[in-house]
Amino acid sequence: MNPRSIPRIVIIGCGFGGLEAAKALAGKPVQVTLIDRCNHHLFQPLLYQVATAGLSAPSIAAPIRHIFRKQRNITVLMGEITAIDTMRCIVSIEGADDITYDYLIVAAGATHSYFGNDAWAAHAPGLKTLEDAFAIRRRVLLAFEHAERETNNERRRAWLTFAVIGAGATGVELAGTLAEIAHHTLSGEFRRFDSSAARVLLLEGGERVLPAFPAELSEKARRQLKKLGVEVRTGARVTSVSDSGVEITESSGTSRIEARTIMWAAGVAASPLGKTLGTALDRAGRVMVQPDLSLPDYPQVSVIGDLAHIECDGKAVPGVSPAAKQMGRCSARNILARIEGRSTSTFRYIDYGTLATIGRKSAVAVLGTIKLWGMPAWLVWLFAHIYFLIGFRNRITVMIDWGWAYFSFQRYARIVIGPWKSERRS
Amino acid sequence: MNPRSIPRIVIIGCGFGGLEAAKALAGKPVQVTLIDRCNHHLFQPLLYQVATAGLSAPSIAAPIRHIFRKQRNITVLMGEITAIDTMRCIVSIEGADDITYDYLIVAAGATHSYFGNDAWAAHAPGLKTLEDAFAIRRRVLLAFEHAERETNNERRRAWLTFAVIGAGATGVELAGTLAEIAHHTLSGEFRRFDSSAARVLLLEGGERVLPAFPAELSEKARRQLKKLGVEVRTGARVTSVSDSGVEITESSGTSRIEARTIMWAAGVAASPLGKTLGTALDRAGRVMVQPDLSLPDYPQVSVIGDLAHIECDGKAVPGVSPAAKQMGRCSARNILARIEGRSTSTFRYIDYGTLATIGRKSAVAVLGTIKLWGMPAWLVWLFAHIYFLIGFRNRITVMIDWGWAYFSFQRYARIVIGPWKSERRS
Repeated sequence: MNPRSIPRIVIIGCGFGGLEAAKALAGKPVQVTLIDRCNHHLFQPLLYQVATAGLSAPSIAAPIRHIFRKQRNITVLMGEITAIDTMRCIVSIEGADDITYDYLIVAAGATHSYFGNDAWAAHAPGLKTLEDAFAIRRRVLLAFEHAERETNNERRRAWLTFAVIGAGATGVELAGTLAEIAHHTLSGEFRRFDSSAARVLLLEGGERVLPAFPAELSEKARRQLKKLGVEVRTGARVTSVSDSGVEITESSGTSRIEARTIMWAAGVAASPLGKTLGTALDRAGRVMVQPDLSLPDYPQVSVIGDLAHIECDGKAVPGVSPAAKQMGRCSARNILARIEGRSTSTFRYIDYGTLATIGRKSAVAVLGTIKLWGMPAWLVWLFAHIYFLIGFRNRITVMIDWGWAYFSFQRYARIVIGPWKSERRS
Repeated sequence: MNPRSIPRIVIIGCGFGGLEAAKALAGKPVQVTLIDRCNHHLFQPLLYQVATAGLSAPSIAAPIRHIFRKQRNITVLMGEITAIDTMRCIVSIEGADDITYDYLIVAAGATHSYFGNDAWAAHAPGLKTLEDAFAIRRRVLLAFEHAERETNNERRRAWLTFAVIGAGATGVELAGTLAEIAHHTLSGEFRRFDSSAARVLLLEGGERVLPAFPAELSEKARRQLKKLGVEVRTGARVTSVSDSGVEITESSGTSRIEARTIMWAAGVAASPLGKTLGTALDRAGRVMVQPDLSLPDYPQVSVIGDLAHIECDGKAVPGVSPAAKQMGRCSARNILARIEGRSTSTFRYIDYGTLATIGRKSAVAVLGTIKLWGMPAWLVWLFAHIYFLIGFRNRITVMIDWGWAYFSFQRYARIVIGPWKSERRS
């Protein structure tokens, strides 16, 4: 324990988990340092909308220090964590002074996983940060520009073929929105081809789309995707990804798809910070935490959110934002309990439901025992997402952007930052 | 002349001049190819708002092909022009097929000029494109983040010193807005320093700010800047720019200002494409055009906007957006006249007035013989800029963003894209 009277708490990461933990500690007799590599909290469930030019970046991101401007006991630092010394209770930040903690909450989240094929990353970007979203937006919009410049039909077809790998929520959202862009948004804007000739493929190694949902809703989702114009291929394992296309292996054999724009939504891996904590990890690299979210050997360290592996009622808690938020609040409560000498409480995950949007007026939802699809599910999704967006200001502009997009079929943010550059692909 | 019946017109650049020229040719019996290196038309007068985190990029940019989606005689291509062959009437695009024209409008605009000190560009970015605006936004926001991480007082002071070089309209806008950010927007958000301690310097080599305005309004602008907290230094010639500060020479001698964030608003140079046209240029690299905006030896080529040098009533037409728009319309009219065998008309510049904003509730304006400053000038500026913003949709969101900013003192777009990176400066 430190000699000073006020306990020092360090929180690493300001995603949903870290944000909720910091909020729960605001105004308490503790001194909090919240460290993130970005200057903003990102509303990640809408990130695919930035990638597909529907929303601007500031609409789904809030400056962290603005959120906590009135919480005088919270200091926000921007920086990259280089090491965590759980023995000596020290966090090292790249290019800045080390920070000593009495309690630590690690909420560093997850990143893409290419299942050992890291070379694929250059050809098939994933979607975790605003930078990723801008990269995907750029690729998608420039693919159509390439198609308009191209005079060779075969090469044009490759520019107009979009492959999304992985049919979880992000993959389904991306594929559905891309089909909408090709068939509606860009309709009539090109002179040398018809944008609705674009192919959007959703490639999934497993047997069904949205595997986290009941089989019945997976089937509904597949039909809605088809209606939007997405070619869904399940049981299609990707065996190779290059600049110009993907190779897939299906029960019928191996084939190649010529596609100049490929997106990766197939896998996530826990943050590499987990490995530095000196404690047991699961196979996905997530930290095995105690029922109160602390580490077995270091009770002053808690791990939460996508980086934590914990089971409730015999089931692993899923890597979704409501779970991260609940863990954030629980870890803060437990640290306050330890400070006051009370016993900590066990984390309990409350599942309010699961939602995935597919495209215009289509989504699937499980709310307790209720299953929804189509327009009703889409309305639930719409209001839930606007409601949970941080900051009154953002909610208004997102509603305007969406209202406009809905009635005009247009997308607000079709802006490629920076000039034409051929260095990307020829 | 080409053997086909429909004349082919190529327009290079879709700034204010190129956009107006293309609009004037829409629906006419001509075939237009509009080429720009960006996919969007940029409302450049508000670019400083993107740089200073007040507006998101899509608020001031409209996809070019969306603007012309219903004009079937206009083809939009994204690409970089590599050569113009005025003898053979061919435009070359990097990585794409050459295009032959019957008439050509060159509206390639201007870029920054560092007066021969190109090495300064790395330390003092200018503001011409969205990419520039993002770079400046990143530098400004990260400077405050650096200051919060910094434990050495002297180094922190350098992070909290912002130098804007050049007191034309852009420099005045940037300096005024930066002062507002330091004194209002970020107020109370840092724990280790007071953001209002930040210094904003506006360095101008000439004798007064806003030299394009009457001396009386320059004086008003200087007072308004001072009130906002900007240190204005006129007669201060910048002799050196580095990573860590600027050196200036004044009548009192040479001195050095330690500043980690430096912005360049001191000079523009005409696009280098001017040199490739095989015709006379003025000292600033602008193309000397005939009274009807065509080239002396190539009547089928017109040059307009910031790249053109033309005099009206014995005065050089200024490089401002209303002049570019008027030239765009005139060049289109004259090409149609040539096609129909009519004689071309002389370009006449109509000066509706000049506006420059300084910050919250302060601006200066000359409208004919009327001079305005303070709140009245600011209101004129506000409504003029919202009115001229392209696209009904953008106007609404810009109004909401500004309304919000005005009453809350907040700025919407305080988002740094991408994580903390130390490679920029240590």
